[in-house]
Amino acid sequence: MHEFQLINRYFSQLSSKNKSSLNLNDDVFFDKSKKLVVSVDTYVEGIHFIDFKKPDLVIKKIIRSSISDIICKGVRPKYYFISGSGNKKTFSISNLRKISKSLKQEQNKYNIFLCGGDTVHSNKLSFTVTSIGFSKKIIFRNNAKLNDDIYVTGNLGDSFAGLNILKKKINVNNHLNKYFESKYYLPSLNLELSTKLLSFANTSIDISDGLITDLEKLTNKQKLSYKLNISSVPISKNLKKLLDQKKLDKKSFISQGDDYQILFTANSSKSRIINIIAKSLGIKISKIGKICSPLQKSQIIDQKGNKTAIKTKGYSHKF
Amino acid sequence: MHEFQLINRYFSQLSSKNKSSLNLNDDVFFDKSKKLVVSVDTYVEGIHFIDFKKPDLVIKKIIRSSISDIICKGVRPKYYFISGSGNKKTFSISNLRKISKSLKQEQNKYNIFLCGGDTVHSNKLSFTVTSIGFSKKIIFRNNAKLNDDIYVTGNLGDSFAGLNILKKKINVNNHLNKYFESKYYLPSLNLELSTKLLSFANTSIDISDGLITDLEKLTNKQKLSYKLNISSVPISKNLKKLLDQKKLDKKSFISQGDDYQILFTANSSKSRIINIIAKSLGIKISKIGKICSPLQKSQIIDQKGNKTAIKTKGYSHKF
Repeated sequence: MHEFQLINRYFSQLSSKNKSSLNLNDDVFFDKSKKLVVSVDTYVEGIHFIDFKKPDLVIKKIIRSSISDIICKGVRPKYYFISGSGNKKTFSISNLRKISKSLKQEQNKYNIFLCGGDTVHSNKLSFTVTSIGFSKKIIFRNNAKLNDDIYVTGNLGDSFAGLNILKKKINVNNHLNKYFESKYYLPSLNLELSTKLLSFANTSIDISDGLITDLEKLTNKQKLSYKLNISSVPISKNLKKLLDQKKLDKKSFISQGDDYQILFTANSSKSRIINIIAKSLGIKISKIGKICSPLQKSQIIDQKGNKTAIKTKGYSHKF
Repeated sequence: MHEFQLINRYFSQLSSKNKSSLNLNDDVFFDKSKKLVVSVDTYVEGIHFIDFKKPDLVIKKIIRSSISDIICKGVRPKYYFISGSGNKKTFSISNLRKISKSLKQEQNKYNIFLCGGDTVHSNKLSFTVTSIGFSKKIIFRNNAKLNDDIYVTGNLGDSFAGLNILKKKINVNNHLNKYFESKYYLPSLNLELSTKLLSFANTSIDISDGLITDLEKLTNKQKLSYKLNISSVPISKNLKKLLDQKKLDKKSFISQGDDYQILFTANSSKSRIINIIAKSLGIKISKIGKICSPLQKSQIIDQKGNKTAIKTKGYSHKF
């Protein structure tokens, strides 16, 4: 059963008396009266990260993944809690030093603080991160408007290239290998853009499961369609180089998830202000498609102008 | 390494800029300016619960264990998040129904709401529960005063008897077996007492790791000692019966943890009001000892008036 159906069938009713939880139909919880924004996510070895050979990088990746949920909603994260289940090796003195140092660096980078957590013994390594922010307002899911432009920040696909290099399925040169691995472990979050989103985005999400999967999540309760232009989807020069060299298709890299870029929609009148803000912050923001009428079917257009499809391989969270 | 040392050595520094987190030296996080109280705990199969053959009872136990952390601090929990890692069997339709029903019953009992969470695939079953409450004030650890009385709510040891019965190490009659098993899975929380604690308790904790372990946690940063009278530690008539029948020692049952009763200290002048409140709420509150001078050593006095020792077998959270 898909996570969506699972949540809807068994758990939505449990939040129904509390309107602010949006019937669990968002990536964050928002208590408007308390101005509280909460995100809870669990990361399991072998699913959300490959292994724990590089504790410093894994810890950074999961912290960024957690606060990314809050940042993409227009809110600055304030603090976090981390609960780790692992064995003696996971929590060896050497690893604890690395974990602590890594957390410290993330705290400085994103101005967040550790406020608690738990450490328990388990033969399966996993972490649960609870991140908290405060805001009067957030950007919800399922709030796209007809004719909205669809935007994405940064570049997509670098992280998936990194994953394949780490898994030894792709090999480029040493310099490029390092570049992509770093993009897999250390996604750049757009903290500076975060609160600015509130002034122009109608709906937003961070891309963790993959461009198409997350675009569909963003609008899954709305009877709208979308038109997406693959040629407009931004990729890095390095990914372009890799695709050319290996004769690989752009399509198979841009919707694999773990990008942690922000996907949002905005009225076309906001186009100018979005460009100005992007320039002033030095952030790349690309228009990649349009929200279309409920009468149309969603369309993905390839580089030659033909309709195509993208397999949504992203995380399925299936049971 | 013990969890205390681990937290102190590697993680306390990460919260140092944020005074409200009490340098991670409490069971809950309190943000005074936001009036926010948060508790995060992870529960692993085989450590915090035996197995998942009774999903309904396990779910109730972990929800109660989580909100107990907040209740014992004088705060009513408002909502919770639950993250489950498990396999297909864990999240079968039949189990999901039981989990959902169980959560619903706990929500009605404690007036709390599900606000989010996560479900991930793992071959090791664990749950992380984040509970949240709001309060201007909480009761801290390490705030016992010299000559304070030490109190505990309810009875201790029933849960440990239940655990032993479930593990087939003890067998009584069918009626008593059921009684103790139920005490293991369904600790009674003192929700009504919670906010009243603020008017008389100087320091408080819920007994999860064991009476002695938790008493020492409660005062571990204070240079004070305690005197504890085993004869005053409250046990149920049923446990008295079991101890008599099996010729077992009270001492070996009262400090084994999982009781989720509230342990607190109060000035002796509060004795009368505590009795009045206990009576009005129909809650048993027993005076079991005294906070003593830093010049003395802590003492545990047995039923014959002799000094004794209790092995602290509670959860060690060691790595």
